[in-house]
Formats: sequence, structure tokens, C-alpha cells
Amino acid sequence: MPVYKAPLRDMKFLLNEVFDYPGHYATLASGENATPDIVDAILAECGKFCEEVLSPLYLTGDEEGCKLENGEVSTPEGYREAYEQYAMGGWQSLSAPEEFGGQGLPASMGLFKQEMMGTANWPFSMYPGLSLGAMNTIFLHGSDEQKQTYLPPLTEGRWAGTMCLTEPQCGTDLGQVKTKAEPQADGSYKLTGTKIFISSGDHDLTENIVHIVLARLPDAPKGTRGISLFIVPKYLPGENGGVGERNAVVCGSLEKKMGIKASATCVMNFDGATGHLIGPENEGLNCMFTFMNTARIGTAIQGVGPAELSYQWALAYAKDRRSMRALSGKKEPEQVADSLIHHADVRRMLLTQKAIAEGGRAMLYYAARLADHMVEGFTEGDEQKAEKYDDKLGFLTPILKGFLTELGYEAANLGVQVFGGHGYIREHGMEQIVRDTRIATLYEGTTGIQALDLLGRKVLLMTQGGAVREFTFKIANFARKHLTDKRLRPWALELLKLTGQWNLLTVRLMLAARKDRDVVSSAAYDFLMYSGYVTMAYIWLRQAAVAVDKLDHGGADSEGFYQAKLATTEFYFERLLPRAQSHASSMLSPSKNLMQLDADDLAFTG
Amino acid sequence: MPVYKAPLRDMKFLLNEVFDYPGHYATLASGENATPDIVDAILAECGKFCEEVLSPLYLTGDEEGCKLENGEVSTPEGYREAYEQYAMGGWQSLSAPEEFGGQGLPASMGLFKQEMMGTANWPFSMYPGLSLGAMNTIFLHGSDEQKQTYLPPLTEGRWAGTMCLTEPQCGTDLGQVKTKAEPQADGSYKLTGTKIFISSGDHDLTENIVHIVLARLPDAPKGTRGISLFIVPKYLPGENGGVGERNAVVCGSLEKKMGIKASATCVMNFDGATGHLIGPENEGLNCMFTFMNTARIGTAIQGVGPAELSYQWALAYAKDRRSMRALSGKKEPEQVADSLIHHADVRRMLLTQKAIAEGGRAMLYYAARLADHMVEGFTEGDEQKAEKYDDKLGFLTPILKGFLTELGYEAANLGVQVFGGHGYIREHGMEQIVRDTRIATLYEGTTGIQALDLLGRKVLLMTQGGAVREFTFKIANFARKHLTDKRLRPWALELLKLTGQWNLLTVRLMLAARKDRDVVSSAAYDFLMYSGYVTMAYIWLRQAAVAVDKLDHGGADSEGFYQAKLATTEFYFERLLPRAQSHASSMLSPSKNLMQLDADDLAFTG
Repeated sequence: MPVYKAPLRDMKFLLNEVFDYPGHYATLASGENATPDIVDAILAECGKFCEEVLSPLYLTGDEEGCKLENGEVSTPEGYREAYEQYAMGGWQSLSAPEEFGGQGLPASMGLFKQEMMGTANWPFSMYPGLSLGAMNTIFLHGSDEQKQTYLPPLTEGRWAGTMCLTEPQCGTDLGQVKTKAEPQADGSYKLTGTKIFISSGDHDLTENIVHIVLARLPDAPKGTRGISLFIVPKYLPGENGGVGERNAVVCGSLEKKMGIKASATCVMNFDGATGHLIGPENEGLNCMFTFMNTARIGTAIQGVGPAELSYQWALAYAKDRRSMRALSGKKEPEQVADSLIHHADVRRMLLTQKAIAEGGRAMLYYAARLADHMVEGFTEGDEQKAEKYDDKLGFLTPILKGFLTELGYEAANLGVQVFGGHGYIREHGMEQIVRDTRIATLYEGTTGIQALDLLGRKVLLMTQGGAVREFTFKIANFARKHLTDKRLRPWALELLKLTGQWNLLTVRLMLAARKDRDVVSSAAYDFLMYSGYVTMAYIWLRQAAVAVDKLDHGGADSEGFYQAKLATTEFYFERLLPRAQSHASSMLSPSKNLMQLDADDLAFTG
Repeated sequence: MPVYKAPLRDMKFLLNEVFDYPGHYATLASGENATPDIVDAILAECGKFCEEVLSPLYLTGDEEGCKLENGEVSTPEGYREAYEQYAMGGWQSLSAPEEFGGQGLPASMGLFKQEMMGTANWPFSMYPGLSLGAMNTIFLHGSDEQKQTYLPPLTEGRWAGTMCLTEPQCGTDLGQVKTKAEPQADGSYKLTGTKIFISSGDHDLTENIVHIVLARLPDAPKGTRGISLFIVPKYLPGENGGVGERNAVVCGSLEKKMGIKASATCVMNFDGATGHLIGPENEGLNCMFTFMNTARIGTAIQGVGPAELSYQWALAYAKDRRSMRALSGKKEPEQVADSLIHHADVRRMLLTQKAIAEGGRAMLYYAARLADHMVEGFTEGDEQKAEKYDDKLGFLTPILKGFLTELGYEAANLGVQVFGGHGYIREHGMEQIVRDTRIATLYEGTTGIQALDLLGRKVLLMTQGGAVREFTFKIANFARKHLTDKRLRPWALELLKLTGQWNLLTVRLMLAARKDRDVVSSAAYDFLMYSGYVTMAYIWLRQAAVAVDKLDHGGADSEGFYQAKLATTEFYFERLLPRAQSHASSMLSPSKNLMQLDADDLAFTG
């Protein structure tokens, strides 16, 4: 059975050599304890846990799936024990505030942990991942009493959390939410309604589950301005931090899904369940979306993780499996055939995976620095700071989430392709990675929604192109600095050209959208993908610049590592980046060619 | 539950209006009975069978899958009855030679049937599909006795067939086949070995199963020149066309797969099984590959079918599901939200599916005319004719199989995307289409193998670019004829430009490959995809030219149909065809950026 190996070398390269995390942590209050030694020790320990405990449960969890019996969900064999180790190891508390039992480390440390966990076993990682969403919401919007009641057991990992948004009639369009919350004499509310697609809605990993639920107060305004947020625990909080009475919220059924089968996706029935308002009345959506950017970075990890895992396994197979002879002549004449790794077309697939996994990881780590500042702003109650970094992050997150999950899925599919017919067979795990990853472009906002958020909201509406100008200014400055090195020059030049084009495309879309609002939707996907390819090019140049420097000034003990960085940068610029131009071309195509047909003329079966 | 509707309008448009099948059939001996009335009646009847019998079994068959009990495989509920109807309806005999009980209709009629069956229920269609492969092989290479024994029950559908090639150590590289065939005193052979991934290897649909098996004679030369072909029936033929003794070939296990679960994929153990040589000793691979081009067109259908099915279901959902408001203003103000169909980004996805489904179908029907001529050459024993059309088809088949299955998978994934989170849930069938379609780029030669076959063999080695010159000459002539119509002019111009570029790219690769053989493998995939996009552009222009003509000269009762053809052509040229340029750019990239890294430097986990 295949196993996962934590890519610590690459992680440390990004942290210490590319993005200067030691310097970054030194500027953060939460960074006080995140010294290089401690960071290294935590990453190594987390990697070991992922390799030894989570990775072996990846295939078996899919095979067994979750079960619903007598209204209670049970997770696959080994999940309880693994979760217990996770909670006992203090992993849930890593970046949580110290006042509620957390270790108070920077938010980025939590992301690095999530990345390794999500790569080793994405479905498992969703349980604690959802809890973090609930913790963040309570931390930011809960009353002191709510924080005191819920945050300590959640931080401990003794309780888990969920986010209950989607209903049968609406997912993206939350203004259609119907679940009702009726005020009671004691200040509590009775919630009634049905939520679907609730990840970790019920399970046997923790003694309690805390649901954060969107619902409507009686006489609330229609649409998005009439939605409030509630805490609805599975068991009402009992004495001394324990649990009390069972609440009227139950899992009605488990969704049968394409993948992430070890993650319980529940239909949750609220049948007059007791809940408490969190945040102001009718401002539930705003509260829910406060930590949206971090949640979306969390999902963007599902672009990187599967690419990494699928790459690791495909690479091992390509070195091992022998088929045909290399076109340039026998490479292993003593063998019956050459290994797959000697075929250029197989290399093309492997390097695509590698470029996506490492390029995507670097994009995440780049953004994680901003997340640290944003979270610090929130924690310190410094709204200006929080908002400033939330905005910077807000431009990047739809790119990370939308672009990286699309490419992660491509990488996972290439992993199957390297295995040939064997990739389609379950025992190798390659097809499971595809099935598990397919959800990533759908939940937490589909790719189309990310694209609209990027182009429509962040670029055109909020900044009139300013977000692109600001980011490309930074990119261009970096590129210009590396025009003199002849190894970096061609890439720096290409990148400079692209920064100009990105701004030009933005202006052209802005003008077109003034006359035709549909342009925003008709161009959004291509604009998102274009932005992703250019951002990834920038991030590859940053890695290449470090590699060149290291090769020139020592560090020869890992020369191969730096050579590989340069080769992958070259591969990316020559073979993946050209796709940006087809997106540039498509996005300028008039919206007419999408909208001109009458819906009835779209198909003729007669 | 969703259902399939046979796209008869589009099929007849291609047959009667675009590709003049009535005129084509008039030139064929097998076309005598394929008059327009009969063709229409057959298509309608087949469509009905697919809609009413096969489509309802699509989701249930996946849910239940196949079972292996006591060495016998059973298919999902309803499959036996459906197959009985299929056989009783004479569908297996449609294009089979009359002398063995077939109806002797043109081969293309069989393809149209396969397309509808494969769209309604791909896994089901594999059982009769594999039989056709066995029938073709026996027809071409069997002795008279073998033909008399096996072809009538196979044509009747009373028996089924398989192709047993793959072994655990080899799939693509069949020179590594190890299964042994030992000659017996009576002229028969005893076969011993293990075959894997055998579609329809065992099942309960027919009273007998005829395996066509690749194996080695004792002292056969090593590699591909030492492989022979054998007929190994599950039951030895008995008296009066019935079955006799059970042969020593059994299904050892069923492969657990990502999809096509209702199709039994078997590990087959040959344990001294009785077989008979078919064709000359040691020329098994050649015999096996005779009908390769038709088999590959058969698989190319799996690019078109899933695109069509996924499009039908996604379109219905997009008209029904309401979410948010169109950016250009409320389209259904009386409703809680607008239908998805009013969002440009959703249209982009739907039109991509439509362009792939209809463009792919048109590519198949274009090639099917060549297949008719080729098959006629074989049937009449006219080797020169057979070879001529086999060559013409040989250039197109890797494009059809490789390019269309890649795009079909994209279309299937877009279907999931239109459904949002609901696409990931099994009950809607959208994720099943993805799982079922994922195999298409893997079996019958992976995309990489198709690409090598196209660029390495058909274009460079066999014709020194002549295949591209010949095909682009035809395209350019067509395009030039349509420069005068202002609706067609921009597309015709673009296509003319592309024919020049295609030749230029071919020459550049030819020159590069002289110095560096790896170029063939490093450029092959991009060359294949580029070729596919240009070919599909040609085929869309052909459809558009007919649409313009019909709109100008009557046929106004289906004006919407022709308008949709023009709009889809516009969509294709503006939004999908630009991708050809990113492939053009990548294919010229030196092979060095794939091959320069030492295999050990591809990953660093430490």
C-alpha cells in the first residue's frame, strides 16, 4: 500500500529560504514562540503523525465509509483512535488563542499542519478543519459566555464543530435560507429546518458537536439581510465543561458521494432544537463570512495536497514500472523494458504534477503571511490592520481557491494517467485521489463563484482594477531585479510582459462591463485562470531566484534540489504558462456568444 | 431519475445534411438496404430501446455492480433482460456479414447504434462491443471452420466474445506477454497464464463466451514477434451450435474500479485451457491490430456519449434550478431567483459540453464514412482498397480516440460543475458519468500512446508529414470555398491560418526529431491536442456552412436548430479553439526541459 511522505525539504525551503518566515514571525506577537527550532520540531512531529497514523487510514477509510445507525454516525475503523491521538497531541490547539487553552502560535502554522494532514488523508482532516471554522466564528462573534462555554472544549478537540449553511433549495444563494429560529422566553431560540451537505454533521470522534447554523428570525427581512447565526450544540453544555441534555438536532441521512467517503456528509434535521444567537440579529451572513478568506485558503489546500500525494505515488510507479523503450535509445538494456520515467510524455505528466504541487504550496505560503497579519489584527482588536490584510488576502483567496483546486484536480487525473489502466483500479489509491479531489472546485464557493468574486467584486467593483495594479506592481519590481542573471532573465522578461497584459485585460474588461454587465460573468472564469497562471509564474520565479543564489553561493550538499527548482521553473514557463494566452483570448470574447441563444434552442432531441 | 433522449435531430442533420450518407451508402454494396427510410427507422427504433431499456439501468447498474460467486459472474439486475431484448432485436447482427446471419448493413450503422447505446449506458454497451471485436478478428483471420463454428452464435448474440491482451506485467508493451500455449497432438493448444483487465471476461448474459487470447508458443521469439492469437471458448462448442464441455478458463476475481461497475472487468485464469490458433504463428499482434482503427473509433464514442449525456442532464438542471440574479438584471422577477441558465458562466460550461458533444459526433460520422470503405475492402477481399482507407482512417483514429476522450472527460466534469455540490452526490448520476468516462483515456491505448501513434508513426515515420499535408489540403479547400459568406468568413480565415500552422509545426518537429528522438515523445501530446482542436474546427465549419445554407434557402421550421449550430460554431472558434495556440507553443518547447533532471532529483521528501 502506498504511503505519504511529508515534503519537509520543500516546506523548509519555502519557509526559510524563499519567504523568510523567521523574520516574519519575529514581527508577530504570536510569533514569539515560533522560533526556527520549534517550527522545525512541530513540522517534523506533524509529518510523522501524518505519515504513520493518517496515511495508512486513507484507503481503508474510503473502502469502509461512514455509517448511520440508530441516528448516530460512526466513522471508519481507526478514525477514533487517530482522532484521539490528534487531540491528545494538542494539534487542534496549535494556532488557537492562549486564553481558551490554545498554544497561540501563528495562523500560518495551522495551515502548514492542515496541508500535511490534508495531503495524507483529506477526508480525516475535514473533521478538525470544520471545527476550526466554528471556533473562529465563536471567537469573533460570540459573547464572553459563549466563548467560555464552547472554546475550551473545542480547542482541546474534545468537542467538534460544523458550519450549517446549505439547504435543499439553496447553496450559493443563501438568501433563500428557510430554517426558522423562534425566540423563547429564556432568551434562547428553537430552530426548525433541514440543512444538507453538512460536513462532520454527526460522528463518533468527540463527545459533543457544536453546530453554527444560519436561520431566519420571525419577520426577518427577505433575502440575505434577514439571516442570523446561531449556536446549536448536539448536547446542551452540562456542568464542569461536560455535556448535558441531548438537543433536537439529528442526522437524517448520510449523502452518498463520489468521494471523501470517510468524511460524514450529513442531512441535518433541526426539530425545534435549542440554539443561541451569535452576533447581531440579521447579520448572520456577514458574521459567517468574516473568516471566509482563511476558510478558502483551507480549501485551496485541497488543490495542493492531492497534487503532492498523486505526484509522490505516480513518481514511485514511474520509476518502478517498465514499459517499452525510450525513444532516444535503451536506458536499461539489461531489463525487459525501460522504466516509465524515461519516456518524455510520462515526464511531462509528472512535471505538471510537480509544478502544480510545489507552485501551489508556494502560493499558499505566500498568502499565509498575510493571513498571520490579518488574524493578529482580529486578535488584537485592531480593525484597521485586520481589514487591510483581509483586503490583500481577499484578492488572492479566490485565485488560490479557484485556480489551485482546478489544477489540483488536473494533477490528480494525471496521476491516474501515469498508472495507465492500473490507475483506474481502486487498490492503488490513484482514482480515490481523483474522486476525493473532485469536491474541491464545488464546495466553499464553486470555481465560477470564486471567479465572480475575483473579477466582479475584488477587481472591478471594490478597486476599479486597483487590486491588479497593486499586485502586478510588486511582481514587476521583483522581475526587474532579476533581469541581469542570464538564467532568470527569460522568465523575468516573460513575467514583466504578463504584468502589463494583466492590467490591460483588466481595463478592457472594465470598459466592456460598463456597456454589458454579462461580461463580468462571461469573462470571470478565464480571468481567474489567467490570474492564477501569472501568479504561479511569479511564485516560481521567486523560487528560481533563491535556487540560483544558493547554487552560486554554496549549499552544494543539496545541489540537486536547487537544480530541480530551476528545471521545474523552466518547465512551468515553457509548457504550462502558455495556457494563460488562451484564457486571455477567451476572456475578451463578447458575452454575446454565450447569451445569444434562446434557452429553448440549446438542444433538439426530436 | 434522469433519462437519456436520443439526439436524432442532430444525427440526421449530420447524416443527411452535412455528410451525405444517402449518397455515400449508394456507393456501397452493403448500402443497398440502407435506404434513408430504413436508416431512419433503425435509428428511431434503436433510440427508443436506448431510452426505454438501457437508460433506466444506468444508475442502478452502478449501484449494484457485478458479483462473482462460485466462479461465475452475474451482472446487475435487469441486465439479462435488457441483453435478451438486444439480442432478440437483432442489434448485434446489424453490420455483421450476411453469410453468418448478419444483416450486412454498413459498418457506420453499427457505430451510430453504438453511440446511442454507449450514451444511454456505457457499461452495458461494453458487453456487445467486446463481442464485435472478437467477431471481427475471427472474420478476418479465422479458418472457415472457425468462422462456421463461432460467427453465427456471436452474430445472433447468443454467445459473447472478449479480447484477452493485458497481463499483470504489461498492458501497452505486449511484447512482455507470458501466457503459454502448448501444442497438443490433436492440433489444439493448452493455454496457461493470467490475463487482467478483461472486459466481459465472464458474465451471465450469454450461454458461452469466446476469448481471443494473446499467448506464446514454445520457443517463440522474444518480444512482439513471438506472440500468437488463440480462440479459447468458455465452453467448448457442442453439437448443433450448442455448448459442450466447460473449458479450463475461469474468472479469478473482479477488479474493483472507479467506474463502469456494471461492466465485469475480470482477472482471467487460463489453466491448461483448450484453444485453437487463429491466424499464422507468431503474428498474433498483427492480427489483433487489424481492426484496431474501428476499435479505437468505438472507444472514441466514449468521448462523445458522456459529453452528450452529461450535457442533457446539466441543461435540464440549469433550466430548473434557481440561484442568484443574472448580472444584466432580473430575468424571472416573479421567482425567488433566476435559473442557472441565465448566468453567462453556466452558459460557458453548457456550450463547452455542447460543442464537444456535437463537434465530437460530427468527427465520428466524418470518419465512419472512411470506415465503411475500409470494411468493404476487407469484406470483398480488396486489399488495396482496405489498406487505402485503413491509412486514411489511421491518421484520424488517434485524434478521435485521444482528443475526444480527453474532451469528453472535461465535458463530464463540467456537468458536475453545473450541478454544484449536487453534482457530487450519486443520485443525480453526474459524478457517475465522470467515473465511467475516466477509463476512456486509459484503455485501448492511453492518450500518450495515441499521441505517439499519431505523431511518431502516422505523421513522421510513415508519411514524413504527408498525412498532415493531405488532410490540411482538404480542409483549406473547404475553407476557401466559404470565404465569401460574411457569416462564415472569419472562421474560414482562421481555419486557413491553422492549416498553414499545422504543416509548419509538423516540419519543425520533423527537423527537431532528426537531432533528438525524445522530441517525438515530448511533443506528441500537444501535437495530438492541437490536431484535435483544428480538426474539430474544420468539422464545425462544415456544420456552419450547412446551417447558413439552410437558413438562406428554407427549412425555416427548424430555424432555431440552425441558429444554434451557428452560435455553437462561434462559441467554439472564440472560446475553445484558442487553446490550440497554447499546445502549439508547448510542443515546440525543447525536450530538454522534460529530460534534463536526474530521476533521483525529481523529489526530495527528507
